[in-house]
Amino acid sequence: MRIGLDIGGTKTDAVAVDSAGTIVARLRLPTGWGADAVVRTVLEAVRSLGAQVPEFGPIDSVGIGIPGQVEPGSARVVHAVNLGVEELDLAAAVGPALGVPVRVENDVNAAAFGAYALHFPLSVDGQGSGSMAYLNLGTGIAAGIVADGELWRGARGTAGEVGHISIDPNGPLCRCGQHGCIEALAGGGAIAERWARSGALPVRDVFDAAEAGDPRAGELRAGLARGVAAAVRVLVLTADVDAVILGGGITALGSRLMADVSAELAASAEASPFMRSLRLEQRVELLPAGSPAAALGAALIGAALDRGALARG
Amino acid sequence: MRIGLDIGGTKTDAVAVDSAGTIVARLRLPTGWGADAVVRTVLEAVRSLGAQVPEFGPIDSVGIGIPGQVEPGSARVVHAVNLGVEELDLAAAVGPALGVPVRVENDVNAAAFGAYALHFPLSVDGQGSGSMAYLNLGTGIAAGIVADGELWRGARGTAGEVGHISIDPNGPLCRCGQHGCIEALAGGGAIAERWARSGALPVRDVFDAAEAGDPRAGELRAGLARGVAAAVRVLVLTADVDAVILGGGITALGSRLMADVSAELAASAEASPFMRSLRLEQRVELLPAGSPAAALGAALIGAALDRGALARG
Repeated sequence: MRIGLDIGGTKTDAVAVDSAGTIVARLRLPTGWGADAVVRTVLEAVRSLGAQVPEFGPIDSVGIGIPGQVEPGSARVVHAVNLGVEELDLAAAVGPALGVPVRVENDVNAAAFGAYALHFPLSVDGQGSGSMAYLNLGTGIAAGIVADGELWRGARGTAGEVGHISIDPNGPLCRCGQHGCIEALAGGGAIAERWARSGALPVRDVFDAAEAGDPRAGELRAGLARGVAAAVRVLVLTADVDAVILGGGITALGSRLMADVSAELAASAEASPFMRSLRLEQRVELLPAGSPAAALGAALIGAALDRGALARG
Repeated sequence: MRIGLDIGGTKTDAVAVDSAGTIVARLRLPTGWGADAVVRTVLEAVRSLGAQVPEFGPIDSVGIGIPGQVEPGSARVVHAVNLGVEELDLAAAVGPALGVPVRVENDVNAAAFGAYALHFPLSVDGQGSGSMAYLNLGTGIAAGIVADGELWRGARGTAGEVGHISIDPNGPLCRCGQHGCIEALAGGGAIAERWARSGALPVRDVFDAAEAGDPRAGELRAGLARGVAAAVRVLVLTADVDAVILGGGITALGSRLMADVSAELAASAEASPFMRSLRLEQRVELLPAGSPAAALGAALIGAALDRGALARG
């Protein structure tokens, strides 16, 4: 049995996966704040899951997706600011207590790998072919790219960082220092900052206010669609992926978001026969709400430890 | 012995490569115009090279790089407008006369693979690791991406088509119908069209006129640097390649071009700590003038026919 965990800022999603890659158990629990509490969360999740389905045998591996930078080839997490973790070697911290191999991966990459496994079920671990980008729309914007059953890890850890591609020299200032980055237009953090009203769901507020006729909200909402559509184009024109799957907090807006993005893609297809030939609207999909993609991806990445696949990282 | 040909609009570069991947002979000859003449050019180049170095034994394979769309998994070339070829199955046309396997590849992909072999000599054919993009600056702008000894072919033939990523909604109209595409700013064809003066080397004229103080030339020259720098950022932020190698006709401008591109990358590094951390200036290189990269890449791609490598395409 393989365990996969997706550690989020408020809750942790955990799945147990059998040798065929099927999810046989799932649970969610609150994520603790700070390094020690995160370690306790991991241990508790693994033990609870293991106890839930003893018939699937002992735990063979644990994979963990975490919202922070994971140093290439290591399990060291840095700058996981949403978890209150500045630096943590998660495999070293939980490995001895668990007694099985532990692999740690950035959460967007884990979600990408899981979304790929759900989208191309026969292709995981090189058993088939097909390529996909998972575009995470959260506080920030980043993508994970999977082709032929392998995560594209890149040379120095910036693969899929499409959020910091500028698409407008006169666009808003990004926290990275450039103007008009995709993230400055479409990132939940940037939108909340520019909207500057209180509320737990600022992007939803912006959508509601835009529908009520607020011109400033309309502008922010249009910028979100512009940014997402641009990220889709970048991913297809650079990596030529079969599909772009949208996930992350902002996708809770569901069909309202998709309608905006589709309209933006349709407008560029209208203007450009070349863009039309790419059939981008047909290549974009929304990850279903509540999808276990990230935890599943973490489980599969953890399991790959045993088999030498995914070893390029 | 493996033969590789780079069929250009005016001349064809041909190399013979031994089993270690070393170039043992090279020749250039004029490219004929139209399908029949292109076929004759290929046959003449292969026979002349074979006769030059008989000590390297019989010809085992022929690989051909050609400036046109090559249908995935085939040797059918379409829209090779610079050669006067609307449609041609080049392997079928030359294979019977040559009696060896023939593989045909888009010229940018062939140059990318050859530049990779020259840049990471131990990594070709999966013997090592490393990733690179070859960014071709010619009439149009497109890139080939190679990682771990394999060409990234993508799902539907648009991998590396970074020229049609828009970086400015208020930028010039591109021939593709969008505004502010990288190619509309930095493509030799677009620059020549906007410069609209007679002359064999319009981009060089623009550089000269800009240095002489012509404001319109200065604007076009600045746009070229902006476009190239943006393509470099896109390639690193999406595919996270170790290096971006610039090649193609515009790179005949050499250090004048590099100085502009470096200044543009330095300006964004100055504005953004994130961009600074990518060290883009150190990752960009110019393919040396007269480099046999494209013909070498074609030879290696042709040779891969025998060995099953590169077979994902």
